[in-house]
Amino acid sequence: MNQSVTDRTHASRLFTSTILTIQRSPAIIPRLGFAQHYYQTFDADRGQLGPLYNDNYSMLNFEHSASRPAQYKGSAAIVDKLRSLPFSRVRHDVKTCDCQPSPNGGVVVVICGDLYVDEEQMPQKFSQTFQLMPTEAAGLAPGSYFIFNDIFRLNVG
Amino acid sequence: MNQSVTDRTHASRLFTSTILTIQRSPAIIPRLGFAQHYYQTFDADRGQLGPLYNDNYSMLNFEHSASRPAQYKGSAAIVDKLRSLPFSRVRHDVKTCDCQPSPNGGVVVVICGDLYVDEEQMPQKFSQTFQLMPTEAAGLAPGSYFIFNDIFRLNVG
Repeated sequence: MNQSVTDRTHASRLFTSTILTIQRSPAIIPRLGFAQHYYQTFDADRGQLGPLYNDNYSMLNFEHSASRPAQYKGSAAIVDKLRSLPFSRVRHDVKTCDCQPSPNGGVVVVICGDLYVDEEQMPQKFSQTFQLMPTEAAGLAPGSYFIFNDIFRLNVG
Repeated sequence: MNQSVTDRTHASRLFTSTILTIQRSPAIIPRLGFAQHYYQTFDADRGQLGPLYNDNYSMLNFEHSASRPAQYKGSAAIVDKLRSLPFSRVRHDVKTCDCQPSPNGGVVVVICGDLYVDEEQMPQKFSQTFQLMPTEAAGLAPGSYFIFNDIFRLNVG
């Protein structure tokens, strides 16, 4: 990866649809905007999540195991996986959202919550870890973030 | 943060006590060694975890909330918090451990599992996200990793 990322504050918008958080610190931006935007999009039409990922850098682990490999790289492969999940209705109920600054302008975001699918009344507990990186890190126009790391787990069993 | 980290493979040891993984890829090293080492140390004597953190860079969120702030920076403050946790016996039963490479030689590690404290027979579900960075990133001797980000959550309620 040829990244020429410098350490500087990214007090700019997270995504086009969540511009409210301009001028806030990078640790605060995703807390306010990212989780809400991500799960609203996921629950409405998860096929629309592609722009939040990057074609070259983004990685998803989705309940990955040696016996059922589920690691994906690049926006297209990630969205294909999300589209293929075997439910039609889904709702994420976010219970906690923790953020920490990470090196080179990144932000680690950890979400825990309840997941409701289709007709199920009983939620499943999930945890999902994102690392967001500034768009400059991928050679894109500055001022936004993309998902570099995405690790999803049901916390069961 | 003045980091002059370059992108290169860190196929070296994770910690002194887990040298078995020399020559493996950085995504594999922590899967094999880190979680085991971290939780064995935590469960035996969590006061000994200090060397895995860095005085200047490491951050811990431990069940942080606005009403009960619990964010710590630096090895000493982090270990003080861990020591102060109100239990004497503890056991982490790791169910899943996911790793992804992150920018500039880092590794994101997400662990989900069961936590047993004192006399409790019923485990509590937990998830813990670490971002490990090469020791060079903190100006230390190369060849190892330290915990840059640590976010702990009980996945309940």
